Amino acid sequence: MKIKKGLMVELGERSYPILISEGLVKQQGVLDEYLGGEQVLIVTNETIGPLYLKQVVDLFSSPIKVFTVVLPDGEQYKTLDHVNKIYDALLENRCNRRVTLIALGGGVVGDMTGFAAASYQRGVNFIQIPTTLLSQVDSSVGGKTGVNHRLGKNMIGAFYQPKCVLADISVLSTLPDRELSAGLAEVIKYGAICDAEFFKWLETNMGLLIARDSDALAYAIKVSCEKKADVVAQDERESGIRATLNFGHTFGHAIEAHMGYGRWLHGEAVAVGMVLASDLSCRLGWLSSSDSERVKILCQKALLPTVKPEEMDVADFVKYMQVDKKNTSDNIKFVLLESLGKAVINDSVQPTLLSATIADSQ
Amino acid sequence: MKIKKGLMVELGERSYPILISEGLVKQQGVLDEYLGGEQVLIVTNETIGPLYLKQVVDLFSSPIKVFTVVLPDGEQYKTLDHVNKIYDALLENRCNRRVTLIALGGGVVGDMTGFAAASYQRGVNFIQIPTTLLSQVDSSVGGKTGVNHRLGKNMIGAFYQPKCVLADISVLSTLPDRELSAGLAEVIKYGAICDAEFFKWLETNMGLLIARDSDALAYAIKVSCEKKADVVAQDERESGIRATLNFGHTFGHAIEAHMGYGRWLHGEAVAVGMVLASDLSCRLGWLSSSDSERVKILCQKALLPTVKPEEMDVADFVKYMQVDKKNTSDNIKFVLLESLGKAVINDSVQPTLLSATIADSQ
Repeated sequence: MKIKKGLMVELGERSYPILISEGLVKQQGVLDEYLGGEQVLIVTNETIGPLYLKQVVDLFSSPIKVFTVVLPDGEQYKTLDHVNKIYDALLENRCNRRVTLIALGGGVVGDMTGFAAASYQRGVNFIQIPTTLLSQVDSSVGGKTGVNHRLGKNMIGAFYQPKCVLADISVLSTLPDRELSAGLAEVIKYGAICDAEFFKWLETNMGLLIARDSDALAYAIKVSCEKKADVVAQDERESGIRATLNFGHTFGHAIEAHMGYGRWLHGEAVAVGMVLASDLSCRLGWLSSSDSERVKILCQKALLPTVKPEEMDVADFVKYMQVDKKNTSDNIKFVLLESLGKAVINDSVQPTLLSATIADSQ
Repeated sequence: MKIKKGLMVELGERSYPILISEGLVKQQGVLDEYLGGEQVLIVTNETIGPLYLKQVVDLFSSPIKVFTVVLPDGEQYKTLDHVNKIYDALLENRCNRRVTLIALGGGVVGDMTGFAAASYQRGVNFIQIPTTLLSQVDSSVGGKTGVNHRLGKNMIGAFYQPKCVLADISVLSTLPDRELSAGLAEVIKYGAICDAEFFKWLETNMGLLIARDSDALAYAIKVSCEKKADVVAQDERESGIRATLNFGHTFGHAIEAHMGYGRWLHGEAVAVGMVLASDLSCRLGWLSSSDSERVKILCQKALLPTVKPEEMDVADFVKYMQVDKKNTSDNIKFVLLESLGKAVINDSVQPTLLSATIADSQ
């Protein structure tokens, strides 16, 4: 196999490697060291299954027994009912507590498979093979797993770490353009919240990333995972600094929830959220207007939306932001920018400033 | 309030107290130090709710907001669908991640509420008020939470520790006789697997326990919780010694599953399981036949069944024991007695001995 880059997510006894490869690993047995026993259940979806499932099945050989589950593709299927289909497959195949679950797909497959792994027999081994840029730079690190509830996104879940993540750049060749851009939103986020140099690198190299240049993607994925791993290592359970990773997400979740899950991609909603949060940071007198503008321009270069959905007004945002699970009180907690590369958390934004930011987004 | 006894379960930063009281705590605010924030959701069932729910609600006062959920009573309702009703209540009442879930009921309520607490917004505070002897001596310690699946018992769940357990002896006055006996099965288990002296104490005092003598019960609950806490502290995730707590359970789960959950009480099935496991230990030449007989006689004194259901044969047992989650291979793992007060784990029992033990149970 060809490993381009790699890194360790340092979490004490829960540390694990992220292997950034080009071409899905061809070598039989290469994942064996991360298995709990001789049973493997691969979970994928109807889009990714036909493209890559056979290759992943072929990584294993006797005596390892491989079972598969193919779920429907889409955020609207990220429910307890679909996690139940994973439990069904585990039990119908008499999988014991040493089984290893492998998530082959994007964030939805990863979140559901991770939650199934966290909760099957109170926890079994878990490996991720993320197949979207978003899941490679976001869900690969952090251990967040879970499903949506009809009353809120990601309301049910667990913190649960994988044994290994295999991020393959070449699978991005089959990724639709919109989803590539959505992944780039999270990449931009890491620059904005904690690395002004990386933000500058992105301003220079966004053209290469959009053109799916393999070296540029490998670099962007590695830096993004490193940034996130660094934050998560400091705050695994999200009691403090980890909340800065939600930059753009308070607004973004409101957009996703209001518009109906699946119509806007998560990264698209986050892009608008980052632009709104930057604008709000500017109104608070922290971020310069030129730096706020740079966030908007970089998102545009990544072919992302940068204004809110026309039909959403202030009340629509506030309604969803108050039940957002990131909030620990009735006040809305925002992740804002003190400067480009430095995020801060603030829960006392004046309602008039928030209204102005939302009203001016057009 | 009158606290008769208490102990700490030592699990590092997850340590918590078990308060053994007589009379439900009357003092407003006594549980406040264990709350995560100002929202509380009490989960109970249709049997316990009418008896004790108001008293528990009254422990809290403004600004704490108390919500309640009343589930149907019975093991057959220990399902993901019923955990979903807890999520519904949490979200409909806009509970944030600082909410505290309180389980008021037996093991079923405790297991479901604990799993909801483990998985709501990836983990919120959890307090247990167990109302059966079984849940006071068993589910209070160990952090096992979860639900059943149509293909197996406790197949879905998490390890999750409460912030506090309040075990009230006086609520046992409303407990049906069968359930008192079922709880005593687990008490007997602690003597059998790790404390021959306590076993002897039980032989002397079983009459007082059956008569619900408050001092005898408080002592038995305290020793049982201490024994379990000691084992769990050594092996929180059940990779080794903790498995000895499953003494009687491999057979017991087969009985529960074959007979249909709810017809036999868990403790009744465990009692028969302990008698069978003792008999098997005797056939292996470890336990003397007189000590094996003492296990049977003590269970009889506790008014527990000691022979298998007539309609179950060897094949019926083996069928369920092989999918039992305690097993990590195709071999059945038994917890057996080397001597009274000393459990060992063995996964190479000859099928002929197992058959003889089951066939002779009549």
